[in-house]
Amino acid sequence: MQHVKRINRELCFEGSILDFYQDTIELPDGKCEKWDFVCHRKGAAAVLPVLEDGKVLLVRQYRNALERETLEIPAGSRDSVTEDTKVCAARELEEETGYKANQLTPLLSLKTTVAFCNEFIDVYLARDLKKGVQHLDEGEFIDLEAYELEELTAMIAEGKIQDSKTVASILAYQNLVLKELIHKMA
Amino acid sequence: MQHVKRINRELCFEGSILDFYQDTIELPDGKCEKWDFVCHRKGAAAVLPVLEDGKVLLVRQYRNALERETLEIPAGSRDSVTEDTKVCAARELEEETGYKANQLTPLLSLKTTVAFCNEFIDVYLARDLKKGVQHLDEGEFIDLEAYELEELTAMIAEGKIQDSKTVASILAYQNLVLKELIHKMA
Repeated sequence: MQHVKRINRELCFEGSILDFYQDTIELPDGKCEKWDFVCHRKGAAAVLPVLEDGKVLLVRQYRNALERETLEIPAGSRDSVTEDTKVCAARELEEETGYKANQLTPLLSLKTTVAFCNEFIDVYLARDLKKGVQHLDEGEFIDLEAYELEELTAMIAEGKIQDSKTVASILAYQNLVLKELIHKMA
Repeated sequence: MQHVKRINRELCFEGSILDFYQDTIELPDGKCEKWDFVCHRKGAAAVLPVLEDGKVLLVRQYRNALERETLEIPAGSRDSVTEDTKVCAARELEEETGYKANQLTPLLSLKTTVAFCNEFIDVYLARDLKKGVQHLDEGEFIDLEAYELEELTAMIAEGKIQDSKTVASILAYQNLVLKELIHKMA
Protein backbone atom coordinates (compact mmCIF):
# COMPACT_ATOMS: atom_id res chain seq x y z
CA MET A 1 0.00 0.00 0.00
CA GLN A 2 1.21 3.51 -0.79
CA HIS A 3 1.68 5.40 2.41
CA VAL A 4 3.19 8.39 4.16
CA LYS A 5 6.83 8.47 5.22
CA ARG A 6 8.19 9.95 8.46
CA ILE A 7 11.31 11.99 7.75
CA ASN A 8 11.78 13.55 11.20
CA ARG A 9 10.61 13.17 14.82
CA GLU A 10 11.16 16.00 17.28
CA LEU A 11 10.61 15.78 21.04
CA CYS A 12 8.57 18.86 22.04
CA PHE A 13 7.77 18.13 25.68
CA GLU A 14 8.53 15.44 28.25
CA GLY A 15 5.49 14.96 30.45
CA SER A 16 5.01 12.83 33.55
CA ILE A 17 3.83 9.64 31.80
CA LEU A 18 3.79 10.83 28.17
CA ASP A 19 6.20 12.41 25.69
CA PHE A 20 4.87 14.79 23.04
CA TYR A 21 6.52 14.73 19.61
CA GLN A 22 6.00 16.45 16.28
CA ASP A 23 6.68 14.26 13.28
CA THR A 24 7.48 15.59 9.83
CA ILE A 25 5.57 13.44 7.38
CA GLU A 26 6.25 13.31 3.65
CA LEU A 27 3.17 12.56 1.57
CA PRO A 28 3.52 10.49 -1.62
CA ASP A 29 3.14 13.66 -3.71
CA GLY A 30 6.26 15.09 -1.96
CA LYS A 31 4.45 17.60 0.26
CA CYS A 32 5.32 17.69 3.97
CA GLU A 33 3.05 18.00 7.00
CA LYS A 34 3.53 18.17 10.80
CA TRP A 35 1.73 15.38 12.68
CA ASP A 36 1.38 15.01 16.47
CA PHE A 37 2.66 11.87 18.18
CA VAL A 38 2.01 11.12 21.85
CA CYS A 39 4.24 8.40 23.28
CA HIS A 40 2.79 6.55 26.27
CA ARG A 41 5.99 5.35 27.86
CA LYS A 42 4.94 2.16 29.59
CA GLY A 43 1.68 0.76 28.19
CA ALA A 44 -1.05 -0.53 30.49
CA ALA A 45 -3.19 -3.44 31.60
CA ALA A 46 -6.80 -3.71 32.73
CA VAL A 47 -9.04 -6.36 34.18
CA LEU A 48 -12.74 -7.24 34.01
CA PRO A 49 -13.51 -8.85 37.40
CA VAL A 50 -16.55 -11.15 37.53
CA LEU A 51 -17.79 -11.90 41.07
CA GLU A 52 -19.19 -15.24 42.24
CA ASP A 53 -22.79 -14.00 41.77
CA GLY A 54 -22.03 -13.07 38.13
CA LYS A 55 -21.89 -9.32 38.75
CA VAL A 56 -19.05 -7.27 37.27
CA LEU A 57 -16.96 -5.14 39.64
CA LEU A 58 -16.15 -1.61 38.44
CA VAL A 59 -14.35 1.38 39.92
CA ARG A 60 -15.82 4.87 40.10
CA GLN A 61 -13.26 7.67 40.16
CA TYR A 62 -12.83 11.33 39.29
CA ARG A 63 -11.00 11.86 35.98
CA ASN A 64 -9.16 15.15 35.65
CA ALA A 65 -9.06 14.91 31.81
CA LEU A 66 -12.89 14.76 31.63
CA GLU A 67 -13.58 16.87 34.74
CA ARG A 68 -16.11 14.32 35.97
CA GLU A 69 -16.44 10.86 37.49
CA THR A 70 -16.30 7.75 35.33
CA LEU A 71 -17.19 4.11 35.83
CA GLU A 72 -14.34 1.90 34.57
CA ILE A 73 -12.76 -1.50 34.81
CA PRO A 74 -9.67 -1.52 37.08
CA ALA A 75 -6.56 -0.54 35.09
CA GLY A 76 -3.14 0.98 35.37
CA SER A 77 0.21 1.57 33.73
CA ARG A 78 2.91 -1.06 33.81
CA ASP A 79 5.71 -0.55 36.38
CA SER A 80 8.29 -0.88 33.60
CA VAL A 81 8.37 -1.47 29.84
CA THR A 82 9.25 -5.13 30.47
CA GLU A 83 6.49 -5.94 32.97
CA ASP A 84 4.19 -8.75 31.82
CA THR A 85 0.72 -7.22 31.38
CA LYS A 86 -0.82 -10.18 33.23
CA VAL A 87 1.29 -9.36 36.29
CA CYS A 88 0.29 -5.70 35.94
CA ALA A 89 -3.42 -6.63 35.63
CA ALA A 90 -3.27 -8.80 38.77
CA ARG A 91 -1.52 -6.00 40.70
CA GLU A 92 -4.00 -3.31 39.61
CA LEU A 93 -6.94 -5.58 40.46
CA GLU A 94 -5.63 -6.11 43.97
CA GLU A 95 -4.59 -2.47 44.52
CA GLU A 96 -7.86 -0.97 43.30
CA THR A 97 -10.40 -3.55 44.51
CA GLY A 98 -8.65 -5.71 47.12
CA TYR A 99 -9.51 -8.87 45.16
CA LYS A 100 -7.06 -11.54 44.00
CA ALA A 101 -8.01 -13.65 40.97
CA ASN A 102 -7.32 -17.38 40.85
CA GLN A 103 -8.22 -17.28 37.15
CA LEU A 104 -6.92 -14.52 34.87
CA THR A 105 -7.37 -15.09 31.11
CA PRO A 106 -6.68 -12.77 28.14
CA LEU A 107 -9.83 -11.00 26.91
CA LEU A 108 -8.69 -8.20 24.56
CA SER A 109 -5.62 -6.32 23.34
CA LEU A 110 -6.43 -2.68 22.66
CA LYS A 111 -4.73 0.38 21.18
CA THR A 112 -6.65 3.27 22.69
CA THR A 113 -6.32 5.97 20.03
CA VAL A 114 -4.27 5.03 16.96
CA ALA A 115 -4.42 8.36 15.10
CA PHE A 116 -1.82 9.96 17.37
CA CYS A 117 -0.80 7.67 20.26
CA ASN A 118 0.94 4.30 20.78
CA GLU A 119 -0.78 3.48 24.10
CA PHE A 120 -1.83 -0.15 24.43
CA ILE A 121 -3.95 -1.87 27.07
CA ASP A 122 -4.08 -5.64 27.50
CA VAL A 123 -7.34 -6.64 29.19
CA TYR A 124 -7.81 -9.82 31.23
CA LEU A 125 -10.96 -11.54 32.45
CA ALA A 126 -10.68 -12.22 36.19
CA ARG A 127 -12.75 -14.99 37.78
CA ASP A 128 -12.65 -17.08 40.94
CA LEU A 129 -11.93 -13.99 43.04
CA LYS A 130 -10.77 -13.97 46.67
CA LYS A 131 -11.39 -10.91 48.81
CA GLY A 132 -8.35 -9.17 50.31
CA VAL A 133 -7.52 -5.57 51.17
CA GLN A 134 -7.66 -2.52 48.83
CA HIS A 135 -4.41 -0.51 48.87
CA LEU A 136 -4.59 2.49 46.58
CA ASP A 137 -1.74 4.57 45.16
CA GLU A 138 -1.34 8.14 46.39
CA GLY A 139 -3.77 10.29 44.42
CA GLU A 140 -6.19 7.40 43.81
CA PHE A 141 -9.65 7.69 45.35
CA ILE A 142 -11.90 4.94 44.18
CA ASP A 143 -15.39 3.63 44.97
CA LEU A 144 -16.25 0.02 44.12
CA GLU A 145 -19.58 -0.78 42.43
CA ALA A 146 -20.90 -4.14 41.20
CA TYR A 147 -23.47 -4.46 38.39
CA GLU A 148 -25.31 -7.15 36.46
CA LEU A 149 -24.07 -7.53 32.89
CA GLU A 150 -27.46 -6.46 31.51
CA GLU A 151 -27.34 -3.27 33.58
CA LEU A 152 -23.90 -2.47 32.17
CA THR A 153 -24.88 -2.96 28.54
CA ALA A 154 -27.91 -0.72 29.15
CA MET A 155 -25.59 1.93 30.65
CA ILE A 156 -23.35 1.69 27.56
CA ALA A 157 -26.37 2.14 25.26
CA GLU A 158 -27.43 5.19 27.31
CA GLY A 159 -23.93 6.71 27.16
CA LYS A 160 -23.46 6.39 30.94
CA ILE A 161 -20.32 4.27 30.40
CA GLN A 162 -18.11 5.68 27.63
CA ASP A 163 -14.51 4.76 28.52
CA SER A 164 -13.35 2.79 25.47
CA LYS A 165 -11.44 0.01 27.29
CA THR A 166 -14.43 -0.49 29.61
CA VAL A 167 -17.02 -0.48 26.80
CA ALA A 168 -14.98 -2.91 24.66
CA SER A 169 -14.33 -5.26 27.60
CA ILE A 170 -17.93 -5.40 28.84
CA LEU A 171 -19.17 -6.05 25.29
CA ALA A 172 -16.51 -8.74 24.73
CA TYR A 173 -17.59 -10.49 27.93
CA GLN A 174 -21.29 -10.19 27.06
CA ASN A 175 -20.49 -11.65 23.67
CA LEU A 176 -18.99 -14.74 25.36
CA VAL A 177 -22.06 -15.08 27.60
CA LEU A 178 -24.55 -14.71 24.70
CA LYS A 179 -22.67 -17.25 22.57
CA GLU A 180 -22.76 -19.76 25.45
CA LEU A 181 -26.50 -19.16 25.79
CA ILE A 182 -27.08 -19.71 22.06
CA HIS A 183 -24.99 -22.88 22.21
CA LYS A 184 -27.18 -24.21 25.05
CA MET A 185 -30.43 -23.24 23.26
CA ALA A 186 -29.43 -24.85 19.93
CA MET B 1 -16.43 11.22 46.71
CA GLN B 2 -13.12 12.66 47.90
CA HIS B 3 -11.01 13.55 44.91
CA VAL B 4 -8.04 15.44 43.57
CA LYS B 5 -8.19 19.17 42.83
CA ARG B 6 -6.55 20.92 39.86
CA ILE B 7 -4.87 24.13 41.01
CA ASN B 8 -3.07 25.03 37.76
CA ARG B 9 -3.06 24.14 34.05
CA GLU B 10 -0.08 25.14 31.91
CA LEU B 11 0.05 24.92 28.10
CA CYS B 12 3.37 23.22 27.21
CA PHE B 13 3.02 22.70 23.47
CA GLU B 14 0.49 23.48 20.73
CA GLY B 15 0.44 20.61 18.25
CA SER B 16 -1.38 20.23 14.95
CA ILE B 17 -4.58 18.68 16.31
CA LEU B 18 -3.69 18.40 20.02
CA ASP B 19 -2.53 20.67 22.82
CA PHE B 20 -0.28 19.32 25.54
CA TYR B 21 -0.76 20.64 29.08
CA GLN B 22 0.72 19.96 32.49
CA ASP B 23 -1.75 20.20 35.33
CA THR B 24 -0.79 20.79 38.94
CA ILE B 25 -2.96 18.50 41.03
CA GLU B 26 -3.47 18.83 44.76
CA LEU B 27 -4.11 15.54 46.52
CA PRO B 28 -6.45 15.43 49.54
CA ASP B 29 -3.44 15.13 51.87
CA GLY B 30 -2.15 18.48 50.53
CA LYS B 31 0.69 17.09 48.39
CA CYS B 32 0.99 18.28 44.77
CA GLU B 33 1.75 16.32 41.60
CA LYS B 34 2.19 17.16 37.89
CA TRP B 35 -0.26 15.32 35.62
CA ASP B 36 -0.28 15.28 31.81
CA PHE B 37 -3.38 16.45 29.94
CA VAL B 38 -3.77 16.07 26.16
CA CYS B 39 -6.54 18.21 24.69
CA HIS B 40 -8.01 16.88 21.44
CA ARG B 41 -9.35 20.12 20.02
CA LYS B 42 -12.29 18.99 17.93
CA GLY B 43 -13.50 15.51 18.93
CA ALA B 44 -14.35 12.90 16.31
CA ALA B 45 -16.97 10.66 14.77
CA ALA B 46 -16.84 7.15 13.33
CA VAL B 47 -19.17 4.85 11.47
CA LEU B 48 -19.73 1.09 11.27
CA PRO B 49 -20.99 0.51 7.70
CA VAL B 50 -23.01 -2.68 7.08
CA LEU B 51 -23.35 -3.65 3.40
CA GLU B 52 -26.46 -5.20 1.84
CA ASP B 53 -24.95 -8.71 2.10
CA GLY B 54 -24.39 -8.22 5.86
CA LYS B 55 -20.62 -7.73 5.60
CA VAL B 56 -18.96 -4.89 7.50
CA LEU B 57 -16.84 -2.43 5.52
CA LEU B 58 -13.49 -1.46 7.07
CA VAL B 59 -10.56 0.69 6.02
CA ARG B 60 -6.95 -0.48 6.04
CA GLN B 61 -4.39 2.28 6.44
CA TYR B 62 -0.86 2.92 7.65
CA ARG B 63 -0.75 4.47 11.14
CA ASN B 64 2.33 6.54 11.90
CA ALA B 65 1.77 6.27 15.70
CA LEU B 66 1.94 2.46 15.56
CA GLU B 67 4.35 2.19 12.61
CA ARG B 68 2.12 -0.40 10.95
CA GLU B 69 -1.15 -0.86 9.10
CA THR B 70 -4.43 -1.14 10.98
CA LEU B 71 -7.94 -2.26 10.09
CA GLU B 72 -10.46 0.26 11.39
CA ILE B 73 -13.96 1.59 10.98
CA PRO B 74 -14.05 4.86 8.98
CA ALA B 75 -13.51 7.84 11.30
CA GLY B 76 -12.27 11.38 11.42
CA SER B 77 -12.12 14.61 13.38
CA ARG B 78 -14.95 17.10 13.30
CA ASP B 79 -14.47 20.13 11.03
CA SER B 80 -15.24 22.42 13.97
CA VAL B 81 -16.17 22.15 17.65
CA THR B 82 -19.80 22.79 16.76
CA GLU B 83 -20.17 20.20 13.97
CA ASP B 84 -22.85 17.58 14.69
CA THR B 85 -21.08 14.22 14.99
CA LYS B 86 -23.74 12.62 12.76
CA VAL B 87 -22.85 15.06 9.96
CA CYS B 88 -19.16 14.32 10.55
CA ALA B 89 -19.79 10.54 10.48
CA ALA B 90 -21.70 10.80 7.17
CA ARG B 91 -18.92 12.91 5.66
CA GLU B 92 -16.11 10.58 6.78
CA LEU B 93 -18.04 7.55 5.48
CA GLU B 94 -18.41 9.14 2.05
CA GLU B 95 -14.83 10.49 1.91
CA GLU B 96 -13.16 7.26 2.99
CA THR B 97 -15.41 4.65 1.35
CA GLY B 98 -17.48 6.43 -1.29
CA TYR B 99 -20.71 5.17 0.31
CA LYS B 100 -23.66 7.29 1.43
CA ALA B 101 -25.92 5.91 4.16
CA ASN B 102 -29.70 6.29 4.01
CA GLN B 103 -29.82 5.06 7.61
CA LEU B 104 -27.39 6.37 10.23
CA THR B 105 -28.22 5.54 13.87
CA PRO B 106 -26.22 6.13 17.09
CA LEU B 107 -24.29 3.02 18.21
CA LEU B 108 -21.82 4.18 20.89
CA SER B 109 -20.31 7.27 22.50
CA LEU B 110 -16.68 6.69 23.45
CA LYS B 111 -13.89 8.49 25.33
CA THR B 112 -10.74 6.93 23.92
CA THR B 113 -8.31 7.25 26.85
CA VAL B 114 -9.67 8.92 29.97
CA ALA B 115 -6.51 8.86 32.10
CA PHE B 116 -4.96 11.78 30.21
CA CYS B 117 -7.08 12.88 27.21
CA ASN B 118 -10.53 14.38 26.55
CA GLU B 119 -10.93 12.91 23.03
CA PHE B 120 -14.42 11.61 22.29
CA ILE B 121 -15.71 9.61 19.34
CA ASP B 122 -19.41 9.23 18.57
CA VAL B 123 -20.00 6.05 16.53
CA TYR B 124 -22.96 5.53 14.19
CA LEU B 125 -24.29 2.38 12.58
CA ALA B 126 -24.68 2.93 8.80
CA ARG B 127 -27.12 0.82 6.81
CA ASP B 128 -28.94 1.04 3.48
CA LEU B 129 -25.76 2.19 1.74
CA LYS B 130 -25.56 3.68 -1.78
CA LYS B 131 -22.29 3.48 -3.65
CA GLY B 132 -20.69 6.75 -4.75
CA VAL B 133 -17.11 7.96 -5.19
CA GLN B 134 -14.27 7.85 -2.61
CA HIS B 135 -12.55 11.23 -2.20
CA LEU B 136 -9.72 11.07 0.33
CA ASP B 137 -8.03 13.93 2.14
CA GLU B 138 -4.41 14.70 1.29
CA GLY B 139 -2.22 12.28 3.21
CA GLU B 140 -4.95 9.62 3.36
CA PHE B 141 -4.25 6.32 1.58
CA ILE B 142 -6.88 3.78 2.31
CA ASP B 143 -7.82 0.28 1.12
CA LEU B 144 -11.39 -0.94 1.57
CA GLU B 145 -12.04 -4.45 2.90
CA ALA B 146 -15.37 -6.13 3.72
CA TYR B 147 -15.69 -8.95 6.25
CA GLU B 148 -18.37 -11.17 7.77
CA LEU B 149 -19.14 -10.30 11.39
CA GLU B 150 -17.89 -13.70 12.58
CA GLU B 151 -14.55 -13.13 10.81
CA LEU B 152 -14.19 -9.79 12.58
CA THR B 153 -14.88 -11.13 16.06
CA ALA B 154 -12.34 -13.90 15.41
CA MET B 155 -9.80 -11.25 14.35
CA ILE B 156 -10.48 -9.33 17.59
CA ALA B 157 -9.96 -12.50 19.66
CA GLU B 158 -6.66 -13.13 17.81
CA GLY B 159 -5.48 -9.54 18.37
CA LYS B 160 -5.53 -8.76 14.63
CA ILE B 161 -7.94 -5.87 15.24
CA GLN B 162 -6.96 -3.81 18.30
CA ASP B 163 -8.11 -0.24 17.63
CA SER B 164 -10.42 0.48 20.57
CA LYS B 165 -13.20 2.34 18.68
CA THR B 166 -13.25 -0.48 16.09
CA VAL B 167 -13.24 -3.30 18.66
CA ALA B 168 -16.01 -1.65 20.73
CA SER B 169 -18.15 -0.93 17.65
CA ILE B 170 -17.88 -4.40 16.11
CA LEU B 171 -18.72 -6.02 19.47
CA ALA B 172 -21.66 -3.64 20.02
CA TYR B 173 -23.04 -4.53 16.60
CA GLN B 174 -22.51 -8.27 17.12
CA ASN B 175 -24.35 -8.08 20.42
CA LEU B 176 -27.35 -6.52 18.65
CA VAL B 177 -27.25 -9.37 16.12
CA LEU B 178 -26.90 -12.09 18.80
CA LYS B 179 -29.76 -10.62 20.87
CA GLU B 180 -32.01 -10.63 17.80
CA LEU B 181 -31.08 -14.27 17.19
CA ILE B 182 -31.86 -15.23 20.81
CA HIS B 183 -35.19 -13.37 20.56
CA LYS B 184 -36.09 -15.42 17.45
CA MET B 185 -34.99 -18.73 19.03
CA ALA B 186 -36.91 -18.15 22.29
